[in-house]
Amino acid sequence: MTKYKLIYFNIRVLGEPIRYILHYMGKEFEDYRMPREDWVELKEKVPFGKLPLLEIDGEVFHQSTAILRYLAIEAGLSGNNASENFQIDMIVAAFGDFVSEVSRFFKMENPTDKESLRLSIIKNTVPFYMTRLEKVLKNNGGYFANRKLSWAELYIVGYCTSLPALIGIDLTEKYPFFKQLTDRVHSLPGIKDWVKRRPNTPM
Amino acid sequence: MTKYKLIYFNIRVLGEPIRYILHYMGKEFEDYRMPREDWVELKEKVPFGKLPLLEIDGEVFHQSTAILRYLAIEAGLSGNNASENFQIDMIVAAFGDFVSEVSRFFKMENPTDKESLRLSIIKNTVPFYMTRLEKVLKNNGGYFANRKLSWAELYIVGYCTSLPALIGIDLTEKYPFFKQLTDRVHSLPGIKDWVKRRPNTPM
Repeated sequence: MTKYKLIYFNIRVLGEPIRYILHYMGKEFEDYRMPREDWVELKEKVPFGKLPLLEIDGEVFHQSTAILRYLAIEAGLSGNNASENFQIDMIVAAFGDFVSEVSRFFKMENPTDKESLRLSIIKNTVPFYMTRLEKVLKNNGGYFANRKLSWAELYIVGYCTSLPALIGIDLTEKYPFFKQLTDRVHSLPGIKDWVKRRPNTPM
Repeated sequence: MTKYKLIYFNIRVLGEPIRYILHYMGKEFEDYRMPREDWVELKEKVPFGKLPLLEIDGEVFHQSTAILRYLAIEAGLSGNNASENFQIDMIVAAFGDFVSEVSRFFKMENPTDKESLRLSIIKNTVPFYMTRLEKVLKNNGGYFANRKLSWAELYIVGYCTSLPALIGIDLTEKYPFFKQLTDRVHSLPGIKDWVKRRPNTPM
């Protein structure tokens, strides 16, 4: 049996979509949550200095979207052909620009700059992306691509559960199609149970 | 015959890897270079407010990595299986974090902040990524993944040709494996000829 070990912090953010897909697949895996103080030392040893990592039978893989795209094939959450995968990849990459902006906020140290970026994300970045994502959901039967579930929904919904604590906004309160999608993802086999029993972390 | 139209600015940056792959494939395509003044109006109409776009038979696609991953299949520049694609995707996503940082610099307006970010990119970000990429190239027979050419090399080499003008650094001068790779990519059929005859833009 393939052995999976997720290495991340004790937060949801970019690790949670990987937890979602592994639970959806019914895989057992080690959900290792590294104490922040261990990270300083490990950071230099990790391929590109970032978590999450997924170990598959001891081999180390990095980058959450690459990990999800790979697992999605076995999970049946990829597209059926190149055109369907193209649609999924476009949404995931577009959303990645939003993730970059939030990551930048997360790493900022100067409190004044940080608060000013947070307000700008809420006022500009969130509406910019969410208006567009809502439109995509509306035109695609409630999904981001190909009118059916893919790893794009697990990635985006899983990540966005951290936004209330990260930047102080709950997208499900303001965006009805996204709320519907979140409920749908959180009702999926494996994920439904996980969402109920997962560690109660602020983000 | 499939009709391709690339919509980007009169620069290389994120459009150039798409030009590389289309030339590598021997495709004819319209290389539309939008005047900056037209962009203000178009920005709101474009899927996620960003260029490049690729029109394929009139249908609009966005996000350079998604476009490359799709074209790579026909070009024979994808992996042969899920594991090989995983290796390619990891490098592309890791490099994407570097691209995000440079894009942020590009968009910055305050000249003092901008210069300070530029210096930090050169002092910290570039060595951080390039040390790791050099190691990958060294261990993979001169390629980023699977010891053979893929769209990852076209993406990264094509993009990096803009760095001298963008942030004032020529990676081929400091990183020997990257220099070798750049020469190799610029000798590929279709790309060799394109590099000689392409518009002489600063970036």
